[in-house]
Amino acid sequence: MVTMSTITGALDVEAVRARLRRAGEAAGRAGVDALVISPGSDLRYLLGVGGGSHERLSCLLLGADAPVLLLPALEAPGYAHLPFDALGVRLRTWVDGEDPFRMVADEVAGATAFAVSDMMPALHALQLRDALGSARQSLAGPIVRELRMRKDAAEIDALAEAGAAIDRVHARMGEWLRAGRTEAEVRADIAAAIVAEGHTEAEFVIVGSGPNGASPHHEVSERVIERGDVVVIDIGGPMASGYNSDCTRTYSIGEPRQDDVAATYAVLQRAQAAAVEAVRPGVTAESVDEAARSVIAAAGFGEYFVHRTGHGIGLDVHEEPYVVSGNAIALEPGMAFSVEPGIYLPGRWGARIEDIVVVTEDGVRSLNNQPHELVVL
Amino acid sequence: MVTMSTITGALDVEAVRARLRRAGEAAGRAGVDALVISPGSDLRYLLGVGGGSHERLSCLLLGADAPVLLLPALEAPGYAHLPFDALGVRLRTWVDGEDPFRMVADEVAGATAFAVSDMMPALHALQLRDALGSARQSLAGPIVRELRMRKDAAEIDALAEAGAAIDRVHARMGEWLRAGRTEAEVRADIAAAIVAEGHTEAEFVIVGSGPNGASPHHEVSERVIERGDVVVIDIGGPMASGYNSDCTRTYSIGEPRQDDVAATYAVLQRAQAAAVEAVRPGVTAESVDEAARSVIAAAGFGEYFVHRTGHGIGLDVHEEPYVVSGNAIALEPGMAFSVEPGIYLPGRWGARIEDIVVVTEDGVRSLNNQPHELVVL
Repeated sequence: MVTMSTITGALDVEAVRARLRRAGEAAGRAGVDALVISPGSDLRYLLGVGGGSHERLSCLLLGADAPVLLLPALEAPGYAHLPFDALGVRLRTWVDGEDPFRMVADEVAGATAFAVSDMMPALHALQLRDALGSARQSLAGPIVRELRMRKDAAEIDALAEAGAAIDRVHARMGEWLRAGRTEAEVRADIAAAIVAEGHTEAEFVIVGSGPNGASPHHEVSERVIERGDVVVIDIGGPMASGYNSDCTRTYSIGEPRQDDVAATYAVLQRAQAAAVEAVRPGVTAESVDEAARSVIAAAGFGEYFVHRTGHGIGLDVHEEPYVVSGNAIALEPGMAFSVEPGIYLPGRWGARIEDIVVVTEDGVRSLNNQPHELVVL
Repeated sequence: MVTMSTITGALDVEAVRARLRRAGEAAGRAGVDALVISPGSDLRYLLGVGGGSHERLSCLLLGADAPVLLLPALEAPGYAHLPFDALGVRLRTWVDGEDPFRMVADEVAGATAFAVSDMMPALHALQLRDALGSARQSLAGPIVRELRMRKDAAEIDALAEAGAAIDRVHARMGEWLRAGRTEAEVRADIAAAIVAEGHTEAEFVIVGSGPNGASPHHEVSERVIERGDVVVIDIGGPMASGYNSDCTRTYSIGEPRQDDVAATYAVLQRAQAAAVEAVRPGVTAESVDEAARSVIAAAGFGEYFVHRTGHGIGLDVHEEPYVVSGNAIALEPGMAFSVEPGIYLPGRWGARIEDIVVVTEDGVRSLNNQPHELVVL
């Protein structure tokens, strides 16, 4: 392999220009002279181009002057489709043997404070620190997230498309989830269906059967699924748009083995519904967490709900806003996040219900719409 | 999705202990009191566990005392298979609301210099910088690479297994690479075969047909392959071992359209062979680059060989040692890297030949063994 750069999606020039301008303004408000954005979801948001970070530095520089896209010359063909003039972005390339960190320092000469992408590898972040001398280095995340967590209509359409695609996979679960098969076998079929239903990849497929369902981070194992098992299925991935799906449903293989499943699951279902109903502009993210948590705690299961209620979603599967105690951010229209309480009974069974929801002008819209009941297969 | 941690492979306790000890010793020689290793290939090398970095901090701390694995409590089940006592590693967990960066500072209290994984996200690297106050922060890459670039016998076996798997895919190329199909269609078939032949994923599949082959970083397009096209196929990915394959061959769809292909390709073949023949202990990495480059330059194509000759390979597709002008490192037995010169004639056609080779006690061993001739399909 030489190296790679993946570019997808049609570009809305005016939307890109507006995002670049707003990011520069947000940096200014944060007292930052220059933003250094690595390939990844921030760059995809700002410039509509995908791809990851490699050992060679690629970055978008946003500062007082016009934006500069600095690329290894070998990667430039992958960006050649960009209408640089229309976007008002200047392209600068470097070749092996040149020092790209020095080039960044030249471009932002005089900056006293600069911020780098949260996901920039330390390999680049520390070399930029050295090249920029006494300038203060901080994270660009808090600046860019102010833009990214308020989705526009096109972004919500993209998330809705992703939600509908993963709903179709859950609707077909009975084709694959059966007693006698291993979790790994079921995962392989689900992964193929995630792609078949429109995703570019099956980024995560959690099949937690029986006691494995009680470990919220269990992914998959060679365990053979048995009749009476409760099974947590948490699946999703990116669409061609770059926007992600993420949806969990809990299934039972025939009637549940344990006699506490029905009553406990009913608590979880009420908790998830309460949290979704709590979502509207002006309420805090933590109050949505509390809405789910209080229902579960009141029923005596508080100690078995061991994670936050949700996470923002968009070009990243996990992004702001996080629905967690301590996050007092007020929800605004366009914010999108998961609502996914769970109850995990160690060594026995577990359950989780997860929908992606969007804050609307006067309430909430769910982007996942499969039934919330325990699905008996 | 909650989050994920992927663990694979059987663990050789003594090998892990030795690697941890040697990493600590290498840090000491570099004047570094503590290494902070993020999930990724460095952690997989040191502890045999895979997975990526998420927004929550997971890290292995190597310093004066026993190694500490610091994990979000929710991720701990994914590491529960590790024999912590036998490895001499202490597990410490944190929950949402606690400050893991403060915990790192406590564990390495008194450190005046610490190093972080090259691939640690800035999100974590800068928060560690703040938590560790006046301690000097540097990159762990130069320390860990000293270990990682000298492969042991088990690692070479793993690379050889990967090489044989990707050779089997190239051997089947005639099944998919035909006139009338798009590059994207051919890629999909190759990707499926890469997995079918034993890889865990098809990490990269470059299909550069006709003029696209002249862009070394072209990946794939909707271009329909035509009779007479020269096509560059550069493919690979990880095996379950974590070790990667990477192999390029150049094909022709019937006899080449252009009449300069045969003579030019012959130059490339001689250049690639000359570089492989140059590999032995004691010679420099850059001299291997020069061996290929001088053949191409002498034939008048110097300006059309626009990238370095190769890169190290192992748990990462790109790692040290880089086979490039300016890298005067002396090769040692166990070093593994690609030898992949190319000639790219803009707008017309291109060709590349790539093998992974390992330095042996007295010479070189190629891990890719498909014929080097232009393959006419």
